[in-house]
Amino acid sequence: MEKKIKRTSKFLKKASKKAGLSPGTLVHVGEQKVEATRITLMNYDLDRLEEKELNRIEESFAYKDKPPVTWINIDGLHEVELVEKIGTYFNIHPLTMEDIVHAGQRPKVEDFEDYIYLVFKMLKFDDAKSHVVSEQVSLIICSHCLISLQETEGDVFNSVRERIRKGRVHIRKSGPDYLAYALIDAVVDHYFLILEKMGEKIEHFEEQLHVQATPEILQAIHDLKREMIYFRKQVWPIREVLSTWQKTESALVQDTNKVFIRDVYDHTIQVIDTIESFRDIISGMMDLYLSTVSNKMNEVMKVLTIMATIFIPLTFVAGIYGMNFKFMPELEWKWSYPVLWILLVVIFCGMIFYFRRKKWL
Amino acid sequence: MEKKIKRTSKFLKKASKKAGLSPGTLVHVGEQKVEATRITLMNYDLDRLEEKELNRIEESFAYKDKPPVTWINIDGLHEVELVEKIGTYFNIHPLTMEDIVHAGQRPKVEDFEDYIYLVFKMLKFDDAKSHVVSEQVSLIICSHCLISLQETEGDVFNSVRERIRKGRVHIRKSGPDYLAYALIDAVVDHYFLILEKMGEKIEHFEEQLHVQATPEILQAIHDLKREMIYFRKQVWPIREVLSTWQKTESALVQDTNKVFIRDVYDHTIQVIDTIESFRDIISGMMDLYLSTVSNKMNEVMKVLTIMATIFIPLTFVAGIYGMNFKFMPELEWKWSYPVLWILLVVIFCGMIFYFRRKKWL
Amino acid sequence: MEKKIKRTSKFLKKASKKAGLSPGTLVHVGEQKVEATRITLMNYDLDRLEEKELNRIEESFAYKDKPPVTWINIDGLHEVELVEKIGTYFNIHPLTMEDIVHAGQRPKVEDFEDYIYLVFKMLKFDDAKSHVVSEQVSLIICSHCLISLQETEGDVFNSVRERIRKGRVHIRKSGPDYLAYALIDAVVDHYFLILEKMGEKIEHFEEQLHVQATPEILQAIHDLKREMIYFRKQVWPIREVLSTWQKTESALVQDTNKVFIRDVYDHTIQVIDTIESFRDIISGMMDLYLSTVSNKMNEVMKVLTIMATIFIPLTFVAGIYGMNFKFMPELEWKWSYPVLWILLVVIFCGMIFYFRRKKWL
Amino acid sequence: MEKKIKRTSKFLKKASKKAGLSPGTLVHVGEQKVEATRITLMNYDLDRLEEKELNRIEESFAYKDKPPVTWINIDGLHEVELVEKIGTYFNIHPLTMEDIVHAGQRPKVEDFEDYIYLVFKMLKFDDAKSHVVSEQVSLIICSHCLISLQETEGDVFNSVRERIRKGRVHIRKSGPDYLAYALIDAVVDHYFLILEKMGEKIEHFEEQLHVQATPEILQAIHDLKREMIYFRKQVWPIREVLSTWQKTESALVQDTNKVFIRDVYDHTIQVIDTIESFRDIISGMMDLYLSTVSNKMNEVMKVLTIMATIFIPLTFVAGIYGMNFKFMPELEWKWSYPVLWILLVVIFCGMIFYFRRKKWL
Amino acid sequence: MEKKIKRTSKFLKKASKKAGLSPGTLVHVGEQKVEATRITLMNYDLDRLEEKELNRIEESFAYKDKPPVTWINIDGLHEVELVEKIGTYFNIHPLTMEDIVHAGQRPKVEDFEDYIYLVFKMLKFDDAKSHVVSEQVSLIICSHCLISLQETEGDVFNSVRERIRKGRVHIRKSGPDYLAYALIDAVVDHYFLILEKMGEKIEHFEEQLHVQATPEILQAIHDLKREMIYFRKQVWPIREVLSTWQKTESALVQDTNKVFIRDVYDHTIQVIDTIESFRDIISGMMDLYLSTVSNKMNEVMKVLTIMATIFIPLTFVAGIYGMNFKFMPELEWKWSYPVLWILLVVIFCGMIFYFRRKKWL
Repeated sequence: MEKKIKRTSKFLKKASKKAGLSPGTLVHVGEQKVEATRITLMNYDLDRLEEKELNRIEESFAYKDKPPVTWINIDGLHEVELVEKIGTYFNIHPLTMEDIVHAGQRPKVEDFEDYIYLVFKMLKFDDAKSHVVSEQVSLIICSHCLISLQETEGDVFNSVRERIRKGRVHIRKSGPDYLAYALIDAVVDHYFLILEKMGEKIEHFEEQLHVQATPEILQAIHDLKREMIYFRKQVWPIREVLSTWQKTESALVQDTNKVFIRDVYDHTIQVIDTIESFRDIISGMMDLYLSTVSNKMNEVMKVLTIMATIFIPLTFVAGIYGMNFKFMPELEWKWSYPVLWILLVVIFCGMIFYFRRKKWL
Repeated sequence: MEKKIKRTSKFLKKASKKAGLSPGTLVHVGEQKVEATRITLMNYDLDRLEEKELNRIEESFAYKDKPPVTWINIDGLHEVELVEKIGTYFNIHPLTMEDIVHAGQRPKVEDFEDYIYLVFKMLKFDDAKSHVVSEQVSLIICSHCLISLQETEGDVFNSVRERIRKGRVHIRKSGPDYLAYALIDAVVDHYFLILEKMGEKIEHFEEQLHVQATPEILQAIHDLKREMIYFRKQVWPIREVLSTWQKTESALVQDTNKVFIRDVYDHTIQVIDTIESFRDIISGMMDLYLSTVSNKMNEVMKVLTIMATIFIPLTFVAGIYGMNFKFMPELEWKWSYPVLWILLVVIFCGMIFYFRRKKWL
Repeated sequence: MEKKIKRTSKFLKKASKKAGLSPGTLVHVGEQKVEATRITLMNYDLDRLEEKELNRIEESFAYKDKPPVTWINIDGLHEVELVEKIGTYFNIHPLTMEDIVHAGQRPKVEDFEDYIYLVFKMLKFDDAKSHVVSEQVSLIICSHCLISLQETEGDVFNSVRERIRKGRVHIRKSGPDYLAYALIDAVVDHYFLILEKMGEKIEHFEEQLHVQATPEILQAIHDLKREMIYFRKQVWPIREVLSTWQKTESALVQDTNKVFIRDVYDHTIQVIDTIESFRDIISGMMDLYLSTVSNKMNEVMKVLTIMATIFIPLTFVAGIYGMNFKFMPELEWKWSYPVLWILLVVIFCGMIFYFRRKKWL
Repeated sequence: MEKKIKRTSKFLKKASKKAGLSPGTLVHVGEQKVEATRITLMNYDLDRLEEKELNRIEESFAYKDKPPVTWINIDGLHEVELVEKIGTYFNIHPLTMEDIVHAGQRPKVEDFEDYIYLVFKMLKFDDAKSHVVSEQVSLIICSHCLISLQETEGDVFNSVRERIRKGRVHIRKSGPDYLAYALIDAVVDHYFLILEKMGEKIEHFEEQLHVQATPEILQAIHDLKREMIYFRKQVWPIREVLSTWQKTESALVQDTNKVFIRDVYDHTIQVIDTIESFRDIISGMMDLYLSTVSNKMNEVMKVLTIMATIFIPLTFVAGIYGMNFKFMPELEWKWSYPVLWILLVVIFCGMIFYFRRKKWL
Repeated sequence: MEKKIKRTSKFLKKASKKAGLSPGTLVHVGEQKVEATRITLMNYDLDRLEEKELNRIEESFAYKDKPPVTWINIDGLHEVELVEKIGTYFNIHPLTMEDIVHAGQRPKVEDFEDYIYLVFKMLKFDDAKSHVVSEQVSLIICSHCLISLQETEGDVFNSVRERIRKGRVHIRKSGPDYLAYALIDAVVDHYFLILEKMGEKIEHFEEQLHVQATPEILQAIHDLKREMIYFRKQVWPIREVLSTWQKTESALVQDTNKVFIRDVYDHTIQVIDTIESFRDIISGMMDLYLSTVSNKMNEVMKVLTIMATIFIPLTFVAGIYGMNFKFMPELEWKWSYPVLWILLVVIFCGMIFYFRRKKWL
């Protein structure tokens, strides 16, 4: 029960908490997914890397305008005061702050003079329950630092962290815009993993459909379809986000990095294309299911019809000679019984022949 | 009966009253939803708030060009003369006045030199009858005052009133354009509540479908689908309205407030996205229903076929030995009866085996 | 038969008459709907109104450049010579003349230097046969006069005539462009009446579906759907027509009147929106019908299965003891008959219990 | 068999011949539809008309730059050398020549400096086999002559020839662009005839569906649907062709003739609109068919259920008293037989009453 | 099993290998389809042709800026170092190199200053397994050479090689952009061959549907539909690629060659149009299948109903006179038996007549 309820409600983060409040009021909307907020900071340039975990957000403020790139990552959004502090210090618009803590944003990019705000969804596929789980990620791109805020600690960003640690030249010499690209790229690459898992599910169900069309498969296909609708809803707007970001005339995005944004944009299109193809295939499977059920019913009906059609007349004949009329000449005749058997066999064979000609047998 | 009739006719406010009249003729189209028109007025700036209820609309005229912001709210549109008076005093175009009293407008924004006219729908979800009820709201944004006109007293605007009363800085220091934004934001936030309720209905029906597919659920899904169509019809054009409003080059909309309009625009897109997803899910439920019914029929057919196929041949055999021929050697034979029983059991088991192999049992 | 044939052919006015002729050749295509052509003329300004019925079209030529506004209305298009005369005197392009008499035009607006040509459909809903009837209306807007040409006398324009007669200020002081607007507005208002009637039909069928799903309702829904397709085909292009007209940079359309064109444009959008919603609802009704039929079949099948499944084994048991074997010990036993009845009742109750558990009863 | 294969393959002219060849290689792709190529020539101005049939294409070369208009019409495209000669003399781009002889072009217009190349489909409706046959028509508009190339002799262009012969002023005084328009107009007018025939088919099938839903009608509807898909595929791109042609900034298209192109453009839109409406209607018929079959099955099931449900219990009762138990008191009782009949009649009537209440009878 | 799994997973090249890596990291994604990489080189101008097979890629570097055109073709992408070498020498952007070796790109064109990068899919139809196989082809257009990279050796490019060898004037005197066009044209021509084969499959299934609707055909149609979805996914973006390429303002594309790009663009549109038409036809076949199954079930039901309805009452009558009541006057009457037969025949004929009237026989 619990499981089912979550399925639909995830399309819509509970907004009741929020309705009627002044815009710009910070209220955390979404589940609290981590116990405590975790703040990590990486400050690096080509030669140097400083990495630490912060206890208080204020420790990061010193890095605001420090020339090499600083990446401040915050896991856990339920501590609204923390976001408020960042907002005040980094001069963030109240609406941006509201969006960060309200975990139901549509992916978007907004260019404020001092920073660019990007929000999108990190998705995971819960294999056991076979449904897609989403988590909101906000990126604030300033001139010398990037602030990323997510609901839980995720391992998706770890690959980027590794790259920085290993001192990959490109990422170490580029600015916060390239870092933002790298994070989004990691997220979009992760979408492909989800598609792969969904593709496997589709194949699995197709094979099962081949073997036997049970109501359970139908339900599973229906659930998969809904997850696909949800997936699509999350990914579709990212296309627009990246396209807008690429066209942004802002000092915060370097022209040489736009080719990378275009690259991740292409990947997003590919994800969307594949989602659409999968949707087509799934709806084809629904049709296949219905046809298979019809076919089976047809087969069942044929068995019934063949049995009934063969034996009902035979039974009638037997019934005739079960009658107790005094004057039934056949009853007395010696050869009646064998002749009757011949008759019954003839009827039987005639029926069989008829059904063969009709290709029912 | 009454209920059903309202369902479809709400797509279309009765226009018969109006057809053939000169444009600009004020005729109230729509139900009279309140007994008496109620006029409230709020005049405020950062430091001060004057709030009163007016008996006659003329009392508000003095506030027309008074510098701090004035919000005149009118509940009840059936008193056409009242609207006419406002129109004359505030110099409103006849077509605008006509639109205000004709409660069947498509949401739109119109920029007349002296004022901006916004019209859209406030929606409520009547949980008992499970249908969406709409109410038309008109906003007239002048340089120093905002006039809002609605069909009934609504509690949706109360949250905005509260904010003004509590002296929230932003709303108290902004102009009528921000106030208009705040009202629309309250209305759009309310849409999310409706979506939530609809989402709950969807989940409820999905669970019920799981348990038993009755015609009542089908009817309920169909009704929900229609309400979704209606909901979508009301919300879809608001997207365009907000987009146009944002792009308006008017002295009546300050540039700093445009980011707020963009924000509510984003929310509207999200509402529309979710409606589309729900529509997809609902149409998937229709398919699921049909498949479930087919499945059940299949199961019924199987039971019938199994029973008939097993017993019809057995009955035939019994019929044979019920015949009254004089010369039937088996009848005389001592072991006939037990042998026959063995034959019957063999046929029975053969059938059972056959159905097992066919996976019908 | 006759009725059915008209239904589809109305999508397409017979073009065979016309195919292969030189463009600009005047051939009347369409049914002759009135006996004689009727020409009426209204010449008015704020203070004065001259209204008369003309015998010959030449009588109207004097009004061509007469300053106050003149409205020449022609009912009946089969007299091609009449149209030719107007064409020659008012300097109308041959293609325009061809379009006027060929009653199968797609709604369009064309801006020739000297005049604007508007053509669109006046629609009526024939309640008895429940289908939509269309009539082509052409408007020629010159600098001082408006010529309207329709196939039959219609009462739709009467409301405009009444307004002129009553001396409504706006219409009496405006030019032919406003008059054209008023006529189109009357036509579009009439579309709402058709929508209302169709909405009533939809409700009626929905209620009937609820009661009993007969093939007649199916046919009626199908017919309604077709009429909707036809309706949509007629109204859809008007959107574009009005949008183009509004943007026309012509001396023949005054800027102050463009707000009125925008208004009727909005109404057209609303008509189209409602048509789309109705189409969605109707196609939902088709699904509902199919599901209802499936449900009923399911119910029929259940009754059959229950009856057959209960009585077939009972009959078999009775058949067993109807056999005439010499040696059947049960037949001799005294309590056989009552014991058999107990057995039969047990089987019966077992079956009933089984069906109850399956929720078939 | 032969017929069916053509149906689908016509969507795609055999390209195997062509694949891998250098672009610009002239290979005739398509069936050879005429025995010998036929070349006719018309040279005319307002006062004069010279018409002749040529044996060799070289005879036409003298007319290339001769001031009055020359129309060279070529029926039969299999003589590739002929097209090559024209290409060389009239200075045609190799790609154009390739397109002319490859009878599988998508309709298009191309503006080369010296000439405009137009290619589109002439369609016919083969009433007997009820499928749409297409033929490719190429037009080359030069400054003083128009070359038209088609696969077979067609009677569609005869009406234009007649007009030229009869000396219709407009066509005789206009240039090759007007002539091209006249030819396209004739082709598009012909599309309406096809639509009419298809409309008649639709009506015919609708009536038959009303009478009896046989698999043959289903097949016929399916075939009609496919022909509609084919028709649409051929006509859809012409819209774009005409729109592009109209906007061409070429000395080869006179501005005064653009109103004519717009006119034929409008007709094309109308054809497309009607095709879409027909497609909607046909897919509605498919639904209607399925529902009708379901309905009939329902009716069949009811008959079976009624019969079985009435007689199975009665037979059971008869079976009971056919048993041969020694001790069955009823058998001895004198009134048993009449009482049993009363019982049977009561059961019978009860059943009938039950079915009446269920509205199955 | 193996076969099925490949079907869906081909929509998505395994990205797991790649996820989380730095962009620009060269990892070969895709199957290794050839044993060893094969490098061929053609250097030609109008008069001369040098053709050789290289062992090491370095041998080609000398040709980089050599004035006549050089075509370097590489079959096999698993040797990542080779691509890396080319990238370094020819100054290719890291993202381009990544795309080359990652065989799951969406077709695209990218204009870097020094070169244009084109990637698209070469498709083949595996007739035995009846599925579409894709192979990624990358083209790098430099000022004097064209580098083509494909996964396997293909015979599609052989026709272009032949043309160069035979010294076709156009290709020999044009630059690398024309060569690129020629290669793409060969690939797109090949698409038509696939369409042909798919068209043949469609026809084949339509004929079979006509004969008998088996679940195997349904499965085959479903598979074909999926291959169509896959085909469409691969071809659709090429449209955009060619359109973008044509509009490129680059010194690497000569204006005189743009007409050729437009030509292949037109062919792509045609491929897409045909795919869409085929999709429509296939989905029509699915409907046809379902209807055919319904029809057959209907027929089966009729046979059952007729048989049961005729014989059940007859059997009942026989059952009546099989009863063993002592006092049944009919049993004693001499003519009972013949009269009963008459009665049975009358019932039988009545039933037959009834079914005939119902048109079930």
